[in-house]
Amino acid sequence: MYVADYHEIAAVNSLDDCMVHAHSFRFDQILKNGFIQHESITDMGTENIGYFFRPRSAAVIGASRDPRKFGHIIFRNLLESTKVYPVNPKAEEVLGEKCYPSVKEIPGPVDLAVIALPAKHVVSAVGECRDKDVKAAVIITAGFAESGNSAGETAILNAKGGMRIIGPNVIGIYDSFSGVDTVFNLRHRQRRPRQGSISFISQSGAFGSAVIDTAASESVGLSKFVSLGNMADVDEADMIDFLLKDKSTKVIAMYLEGSKDYRQLYEKIKSSSKPVIVVKAGKTKASAKAIASHTASLAGPSELFSGMLRQAGAIEAAADDMFDIARVFSQPRMRNNRVHIVTDGGGFGILAADAVMQNHLRLSVLSKKTADKIASHVPSYASISNPLDLTGDADTERYRKVLPLVLADKGVDAVIVILLMQISALDSKIIGVLEEAKHFNKPIAVCMTGGEFTNIHRKLLEERGIPTYSTPERAAYVLGCLHRFSKNKRQKSE
Amino acid sequence: MYVADYHEIAAVNSLDDCMVHAHSFRFDQILKNGFIQHESITDMGTENIGYFFRPRSAAVIGASRDPRKFGHIIFRNLLESTKVYPVNPKAEEVLGEKCYPSVKEIPGPVDLAVIALPAKHVVSAVGECRDKDVKAAVIITAGFAESGNSAGETAILNAKGGMRIIGPNVIGIYDSFSGVDTVFNLRHRQRRPRQGSISFISQSGAFGSAVIDTAASESVGLSKFVSLGNMADVDEADMIDFLLKDKSTKVIAMYLEGSKDYRQLYEKIKSSSKPVIVVKAGKTKASAKAIASHTASLAGPSELFSGMLRQAGAIEAAADDMFDIARVFSQPRMRNNRVHIVTDGGGFGILAADAVMQNHLRLSVLSKKTADKIASHVPSYASISNPLDLTGDADTERYRKVLPLVLADKGVDAVIVILLMQISALDSKIIGVLEEAKHFNKPIAVCMTGGEFTNIHRKLLEERGIPTYSTPERAAYVLGCLHRFSKNKRQKSE
Repeated sequence: MYVADYHEIAAVNSLDDCMVHAHSFRFDQILKNGFIQHESITDMGTENIGYFFRPRSAAVIGASRDPRKFGHIIFRNLLESTKVYPVNPKAEEVLGEKCYPSVKEIPGPVDLAVIALPAKHVVSAVGECRDKDVKAAVIITAGFAESGNSAGETAILNAKGGMRIIGPNVIGIYDSFSGVDTVFNLRHRQRRPRQGSISFISQSGAFGSAVIDTAASESVGLSKFVSLGNMADVDEADMIDFLLKDKSTKVIAMYLEGSKDYRQLYEKIKSSSKPVIVVKAGKTKASAKAIASHTASLAGPSELFSGMLRQAGAIEAAADDMFDIARVFSQPRMRNNRVHIVTDGGGFGILAADAVMQNHLRLSVLSKKTADKIASHVPSYASISNPLDLTGDADTERYRKVLPLVLADKGVDAVIVILLMQISALDSKIIGVLEEAKHFNKPIAVCMTGGEFTNIHRKLLEERGIPTYSTPERAAYVLGCLHRFSKNKRQKSE
Repeated sequence: MYVADYHEIAAVNSLDDCMVHAHSFRFDQILKNGFIQHESITDMGTENIGYFFRPRSAAVIGASRDPRKFGHIIFRNLLESTKVYPVNPKAEEVLGEKCYPSVKEIPGPVDLAVIALPAKHVVSAVGECRDKDVKAAVIITAGFAESGNSAGETAILNAKGGMRIIGPNVIGIYDSFSGVDTVFNLRHRQRRPRQGSISFISQSGAFGSAVIDTAASESVGLSKFVSLGNMADVDEADMIDFLLKDKSTKVIAMYLEGSKDYRQLYEKIKSSSKPVIVVKAGKTKASAKAIASHTASLAGPSELFSGMLRQAGAIEAAADDMFDIARVFSQPRMRNNRVHIVTDGGGFGILAADAVMQNHLRLSVLSKKTADKIASHVPSYASISNPLDLTGDADTERYRKVLPLVLADKGVDAVIVILLMQISALDSKIIGVLEEAKHFNKPIAVCMTGGEFTNIHRKLLEERGIPTYSTPERAAYVLGCLHRFSKNKRQKSE
């Protein structure tokens, strides 16, 4: 209902009008002016959602012996992490495990069901899961609201009882800690990321799998991944609720096409103590049409959505930037906006200085005491300023001596460390230097640009919780995000 | 002189003033109003610059037996491509080659000298090269104008005679076709790119080496790389002159901190029939100071510089985007701005549609005839629109049948092809499908996001001259650049 009203408003105001108002628009006003109807928010709770990630046992309904089938890949992956039963009336066994004709025939209890059946068989399978007292089901199958079959989704909701459902129309879920993996992509095509503190929920399965594959190849750590699909039951707000309580999640990243309840989403994000990063697809009228046939979501006008996110305290990101931003939150919060740049490449230092200014940060000024100490450790041609140019012949020892002095300076709130491995005398011991630097409890963003040799070292740093970026612009951009978040949280708690 | 005036003007107008005027500022007006003095432009010519890249023989002055020394690495690298003599009065031989105490003692002619000596010995070495009738010299050595020693550079110019000089303060030059490689970075730290049509000139050595290392690891092809350093003799305008005539160069990419002659730069770019892409460092007052001590360049106010680039027809890029843009110019020019998106991932299609609109392109509409033909090749749940969503089960055959139909449609000027290798039934034969699609003579930008499996296929496409991008946003952004360039060139030729 709310979304319909929303669209009516959008039809009256042209896109250009929205653009003009975008900057001054306050979401609170939308609430007050009644654009959004004050419906009582149904408390969906977070009950049973935990069963998706830590089931005591699972069943794959539609488990197949054909290694190319989703039902086979999912079953094989789940075998590694939990007790799992194959369900398939046409098979005796799958991968050596006794097969059951129905979930109801399974002797023990089943917490999690993964349904990988043709659409016409899904509703009856859901009913059987309910009868078996299954707690949570992931419905992989497509062919529901996204292709006009809303009735199918209603039938699923009517059949599910108290069971929680993710889907339909999803690629699955993944938990790096429990090992639960219901993603149907082959692992050589889509690698699974290592353990980490970022959880990522995506309305688009393809976007989700492409992004976590990229993350895995760059050694970015993930806690949980959820492909949300059509969100017949569990939606993005439920997942935020759950992830806020999840100890292994420190940062929430989301890909959203639209929400069925923007007000609820706003409230959830606003209440979040953890950073929430949102990639919003469907920013133009042209793409809103495509969304309807993708995940059946209704996209609101982009400017209103962006305004809402800003006021709720979320960080809106381009697809490219999502994990770049998420990774900086492994760092301590920024007390103020004064950034120091330490580099072994002059050009990169200059690009970083430009980017610091352009991201509403300031270039810190070292105390005379700090500068004097640094002078005793660097050659005369090094530039003790900001950027602090250690020059192209800087070796690991020079960084080891200088970095702690910069970090200890009271005028410095964060440091961009530029390490160019092509030209320099730097060796792998630089990893240890950066690890030691964590003790100063100030944010560090490392900039490293290059190919294989560089990327090996980037991965080593990522695995140690030190975020690395491919350009000075990106390093400065994420510190800008970190600073805004730190400031907002400080203001809230005051 | 001109630069001094320029700065005087900049001191009167505050940066904020510049910001206000930036959009309406026409560089022609600067010329008219006398901000830039109409000095007669000395024709530096392109004589002898060819010797840098295709010397019949070379000498490394300061060739060393110590494998860690620049003079050793450069000598070893040059051995692979040309007859090269080591010059070092303290050595009998280097890597089995007879060593000469001075370049003058070398029996045969020497076209190219690479000077890797301490600063105090450079001027006399330059004099000896002149006496030997050396045509071109690369001076690696730092410690000249960038550290206050302008007198040293004047002495070099006085000693050089008719010889052309690149440097001082450079990491070297590289030509993928002739194999000439005077870059002193170890090859395992900084890989050399394969042959390609992009030439890249950089005032920053560190930026240059980091970027070509990245390019090499992503299978981006390069023709020539030149580290320009302090530009005592050969400057960016000379190099543009040379590269405009160079048959293996189709695109010119530059990293610039400043120019000694902005007017000359403007004229060169304006006369260029090849795309010129510029990354400008030193956009804020804070970074201008750092530039002086880096390559001794004087950075002009960023807004004026950007305006100049725009009017000259150059493309200004962020560091991140430089090669992304350069690669799209392997494609045919765009006749108009109508882009079709073909995808196997709905979310990516939506992001691409947003990005197409945001980059001032249009979403093309297929003719009924085309749409009907496509309908016979795709399942009923595929969305024959724009984005054209072939859905997650699209295999290579579906692309093979559909892509030519889209490309043949008269309403389509360019295509973004999204290939998500994680989720799909796509196999490596998709490379051949894209190669065949080149025959339609319309620009194609491929979007592929992911890790190892994806990147293997990206490299295969890059090697076949089909540009690939990590996000839909980037694919749309580069098509926007291509369209603007195509349009400008059309207007010029009309």
